Amino acid sequence: MSANLAPPITLLTDFGMQDTYVAEMHGVIAGLAPNVRVIDLTHAILPQNIRQGALALADAVEAFPDGTIHVAVVDPGVGSRRRAVAAEIGRWRFVGPDNGLLSGVLRRWPRQRVVSLTNPQFFRAAVSRTFHGRDIFAPVAAHWAAGVALEAFGNPLETPLIQLDWPSPTRGDHCLTGQVLAIDHFGNLLTDLTVDLLSTQVPSGAASVTVLVGEQCVGPIVGAYSERPGQLLALVGSHGRLEIAVESGSAAKQLQLGVGATVVVQWSHS
Amino acid sequence: MSANLAPPITLLTDFGMQDTYVAEMHGVIAGLAPNVRVIDLTHAILPQNIRQGALALADAVEAFPDGTIHVAVVDPGVGSRRRAVAAEIGRWRFVGPDNGLLSGVLRRWPRQRVVSLTNPQFFRAAVSRTFHGRDIFAPVAAHWAAGVALEAFGNPLETPLIQLDWPSPTRGDHCLTGQVLAIDHFGNLLTDLTVDLLSTQVPSGAASVTVLVGEQCVGPIVGAYSERPGQLLALVGSHGRLEIAVESGSAAKQLQLGVGATVVVQWSHS
Amino acid sequence: MSANLAPPITLLTDFGMQDTYVAEMHGVIAGLAPNVRVIDLTHAILPQNIRQGALALADAVEAFPDGTIHVAVVDPGVGSRRRAVAAEIGRWRFVGPDNGLLSGVLRRWPRQRVVSLTNPQFFRAAVSRTFHGRDIFAPVAAHWAAGVALEAFGNPLETPLIQLDWPSPTRGDHCLTGQVLAIDHFGNLLTDLTVDLLSTQVPSGAASVTVLVGEQCVGPIVGAYSERPGQLLALVGSHGRLEIAVESGSAAKQLQLGVGATVVVQWSHS
Repeated sequence: MSANLAPPITLLTDFGMQDTYVAEMHGVIAGLAPNVRVIDLTHAILPQNIRQGALALADAVEAFPDGTIHVAVVDPGVGSRRRAVAAEIGRWRFVGPDNGLLSGVLRRWPRQRVVSLTNPQFFRAAVSRTFHGRDIFAPVAAHWAAGVALEAFGNPLETPLIQLDWPSPTRGDHCLTGQVLAIDHFGNLLTDLTVDLLSTQVPSGAASVTVLVGEQCVGPIVGAYSERPGQLLALVGSHGRLEIAVESGSAAKQLQLGVGATVVVQWSHS
Repeated sequence: MSANLAPPITLLTDFGMQDTYVAEMHGVIAGLAPNVRVIDLTHAILPQNIRQGALALADAVEAFPDGTIHVAVVDPGVGSRRRAVAAEIGRWRFVGPDNGLLSGVLRRWPRQRVVSLTNPQFFRAAVSRTFHGRDIFAPVAAHWAAGVALEAFGNPLETPLIQLDWPSPTRGDHCLTGQVLAIDHFGNLLTDLTVDLLSTQVPSGAASVTVLVGEQCVGPIVGAYSERPGQLLALVGSHGRLEIAVESGSAAKQLQLGVGATVVVQWSHS
Repeated sequence: MSANLAPPITLLTDFGMQDTYVAEMHGVIAGLAPNVRVIDLTHAILPQNIRQGALALADAVEAFPDGTIHVAVVDPGVGSRRRAVAAEIGRWRFVGPDNGLLSGVLRRWPRQRVVSLTNPQFFRAAVSRTFHGRDIFAPVAAHWAAGVALEAFGNPLETPLIQLDWPSPTRGDHCLTGQVLAIDHFGNLLTDLTVDLLSTQVPSGAASVTVLVGEQCVGPIVGAYSERPGQLLALVGSHGRLEIAVESGSAAKQLQLGVGATVVVQWSHS
């Protein structure tokens, strides 16, 4: 395999882009794996918001080549005894703190192997107690991308990875009730009502499927933003989630709703 | 040609950097064209602002190598019947929706060949109706960069690409009147009075050339910011446009003017 | 040496990410040094804030491979007679205006060689008077990365590089007084009290070391954020600087303090 064909490394953090923290992770990787492409997944996770990071990570990975190494660092416990791990989950590889940040991917894909990062041979020479992204996670990812075997980084994890709970959508008689999980740059409300859930729970012969958010009726599930110019609408977005949007506008602003708002899909029998 | 010498791909969108949308486009390209460099042109185009995107694209391309593939996605019509295209324009290549986003480059450089993206062989396996940036435009760009011929993506376009109109600057007896097209990070007002226009329209023997913006006299056209420390000034900026600036300050804040404001260049006979 | 193993180029500017200015620098480099990795150090330096840029640059460089070329452009004097330089300082290389932006690295590492950028052969064909980042610094960096010798860019500098002064921390009888130099994305206050200074100035046998900021007592210097959940704390951060933080919160917001605030480390004899 040509070194140039090594899968990329991605970086997801809550570091923002104002400081040089993200660049320092790129710098460490550039020194150890000069041929590996590094992609910024996002650095706009809210500070210490593990749940938001876990969701963003799980929704993004399918766009990446098999074997991509995703470094995820939302790490309020940095410098404490929380574990640092490398994991093979689904078709990808992950490096980061064991604090729930991998919960989203663990719910959707089979876990294969996980090791605890205990071998300092693959860390930066001096490890700070405040920036393991630069000093542990970035160099481990670079060595992994450069061909080091997973086993070399430490021993298999003896107890399970930490998993966060999300409230599950609930099925009623003629309805499915979920919630808003995130709001994107366009003000679209992304929900936990996935296309898989909708296709298994909403009867295929159902008539008049209607979406409600907050106390507002959004209407049926449409196929594209452009089907309702300037209007509030519901559709299945690019991450396979029911989303509430306003074509050429912001649903979050118009509805004044945020994360946690209730979303209901109702139907009548045909 | 070594694969490493393939021209880069650039990405211009209105996606912002908060979500993982931009990264997913990088991920798709990384899987298909692992040796091709990808450069973020900007992701700060205002949501659905095709005109702003068209201008930014046209002003930026000259800094890129011949053959660079510019993927531009400001796409309110995604999922509708609006066309998706790949085009050779000037010395570069372009991929995106046919909605006017290429207007700026079309005004300045000759169009060579354009095809409609109709061959799903070069799309992602599952194409969403909300994110053609990831599912159509990124993979087509990656295949194009990797050597696929333009013709393979679809048939030549039968009707012209959509072009937006901009009001043209007008020539008066002793003046040239234009407008502010954009405001940059520094608060500089960028106008539609280009260096080409100034050099052909302002008489070479003209005395006392003066710039006015709003109702404010800015003074003559100077050569560099540093010629008027702390002052309001007019100069020809790095994109060849007359711009109004305040040295070490923000002209937009000081003048309280925005896009569409009138700018006049006046002169007297020598 | 394989071209792929060339050290990376980094870019630090006050350009922001809203416009295409940063991308145009990437584009110029891509055309001249297609195999060289380019890393954005940060583009969020406040407009014309040379001091902030000098500090960010000095604190970030240690994460980068030897020989990395750091292009730094915070350049209020662009287009004036201020010098443009290329320099070898410490284990890295630097390109930018001679306006104090290299002050931070010059204080910490030995200067080796500096040349004035006077050879237009390595500039872009047309050099604007407003954007030397794209037209002079980026192409010089690309040529340098591609193997051109430092001497080719111009003659050795005849007078010293411009150096900014920072007030030095002062040593009192039982205390060390410094100041806040920067505030990061998390609201952490980064000070000029470095780990080197603390280790040489605070007696090793000192009892009860206490940190004060503004008029607020922060307590002892701890090892990690997680040692004081939700609390105000002082620790040595990842750049070797004493920093004031609030675990899972913002010290800047809680204390309502900014750059220039006084920080005191006090101790009693053991």
